[in-house]
Amino acid sequence: MNLILLQPEDFVSEARVRLLDRRLVHVRKHIKAAVGDALGVGLLGGKMGRARVVRIDREALELELEAALSEPPPPPSAVTLAVALPRPATLEKVLQQGTVLGIKRFLLFHSRRVEKSYWDASALEPAALRRQLLLGLEQTRDTILPELEFHRRFRPFAEDRLASLRAAAPVLVADPHGPRPCPRAQVGPLTLVLGPEGGFVEFERERFAALGDALVHLGPRIMRVETAAVALLARLDPGPRSG
Amino acid sequence: MNLILLQPEDFVSEARVRLLDRRLVHVRKHIKAAVGDALGVGLLGGKMGRARVVRIDREALELELEAALSEPPPPPSAVTLAVALPRPATLEKVLQQGTVLGIKRFLLFHSRRVEKSYWDASALEPAALRRQLLLGLEQTRDTILPELEFHRRFRPFAEDRLASLRAAAPVLVADPHGPRPCPRAQVGPLTLVLGPEGGFVEFERERFAALGDALVHLGPRIMRVETAAVALLARLDPGPRSG
Repeated sequence: MNLILLQPEDFVSEARVRLLDRRLVHVRKHIKAAVGDALGVGLLGGKMGRARVVRIDREALELELEAALSEPPPPPSAVTLAVALPRPATLEKVLQQGTVLGIKRFLLFHSRRVEKSYWDASALEPAALRRQLLLGLEQTRDTILPELEFHRRFRPFAEDRLASLRAAAPVLVADPHGPRPCPRAQVGPLTLVLGPEGGFVEFERERFAALGDALVHLGPRIMRVETAAVALLARLDPGPRSG
Repeated sequence: MNLILLQPEDFVSEARVRLLDRRLVHVRKHIKAAVGDALGVGLLGGKMGRARVVRIDREALELELEAALSEPPPPPSAVTLAVALPRPATLEKVLQQGTVLGIKRFLLFHSRRVEKSYWDASALEPAALRRQLLLGLEQTRDTILPELEFHRRFRPFAEDRLASLRAAAPVLVADPHGPRPCPRAQVGPLTLVLGPEGGFVEFERERFAALGDALVHLGPRIMRVETAAVALLARLDPGPRSG
C-alpha cells in the first residue's frame, strides 16, 4: 500500500480522516506507522498529498492532511484492455497489474475457449472486482478507478462493442499466430485484445482479421495471460520518454 | 504445460519414454490426452519435437517419439537478471516468469531492505528452485535450464561479481529515482538489476552509480517486483523484429 485511498465518508472534519477498516490494519501491521509519521494519501477520484498520523491504535487510524490535496494522479494509459475472461485467480492478477500499469477501462468477454463456469465465479461479484482495482491503485499510487465491462457473447462483443472503439483507435489482437510483431511505444489511444489460455479459435481469429484488426505476436514463447498482458502493455507504452 | 520435458532416465528404448510422476498426472488430468494423441516434448538441455501417446493409465504415460528430436529451443534472452532476494512467493513468480521470457542466468543478492529471514526460506532449497524453473520451461516451450547464483553480501556482489559482467556488457539498475528512462529494444548482452520492495537505500544507489551503472526508471508508477521484472524485460527485449 503506497497510497491510502480516502473517500468523502472518511472525513470527520475538513482536514481530518478516521479509518477503521483494512486500511487501519495495514498501516498498523505492515507499515507500522506511529503518531507523527507522514503517509501518502489520495482522494478516490481526486488529488493526492500527504497526511500525518495523529492517532493510531486498535480502534482507529486518524490522519490530518498536511495541506489541501493538490498532486494529480499519474497519467493514465491510453490503452483499453480487452481480455477473454480468465480463471478467477488470473482475473485478479490481470485487474491488479493492469490497474498498476494505468489501464482505465477493462473489457472482459467470452470466447470459445473460456470455461462457462468462469462467468459464475465469486471473483466477478462487484465487491470482489472493486477490491482488486483498489489494491492496484494503492500499489501504483493512483486515484482513478478503472471501469469494467462484461460481454458474455463473442460476436456482439467483437462486432458491435469493438466497432465503436475501432472508429476511434486501432484494435490490436494478441495472437501467437499473428502475421506481425506487436508494435512498440504507441502514442494515442488503442484497444489491446488478449485471448484465453490456449488462444482464440480459428473462427474468432478470422473474425477479428475480417473486421480490420491487426493480429500481432510477441515471438515464439508461450506466456500465461497475466504475463502476456504486462509484457504487451510495457512494449506498447510510449512513456516514459527519453529526456 | 505446453512442453513435456524429458530426461535420459525417462527413456525405455531409443524412441520411447515412460513417465510416472507429475507429468503423468498433468497429462491425464489437465491435458486429458488419450492413446494416439500427439504432444510436444523436449529433451532437457536439448532439442524438441512431438511424441504420440501409446499408453496412458493410472500407472504410466508412455510416449513414442514421432521422429528424432530436431527443433531447437527458442532463442534465449541476452539479459542476465539480478534481483534483490524477494519474499518466497515473489521469488517463485520472478523465476517462473523470467524463465518464460528466456532468462538463462538469475543472480539473487542481498540488499539493505531484504529481510534476512528470506535467506532461510524453503523456497531456496535446490528442489524448490528447480521446480520453478521447470514450470517456466514447460510453459514457454524451452529446454535450457537457467542458472542461479546467490550472493548473500551486497558489496562483494555489487563490486566484485558485477565487475566481470560490467566488463562485458552494460549494467542497468532499475530505480524509480533514476535520472533516465529505461531504454528500449536493446540488442546484445546486458545485466538488469532490480531492487527489493521499497527500493535500494541511498548508499546502494550511490554505489551502483559510482561503479558506472545506469540508473533507469519506468515512470511514476510503483510496481511490485514481479510486475516490474516483466515490464522491464519486455521493454528491453529487441525481438520479435518487425518483418
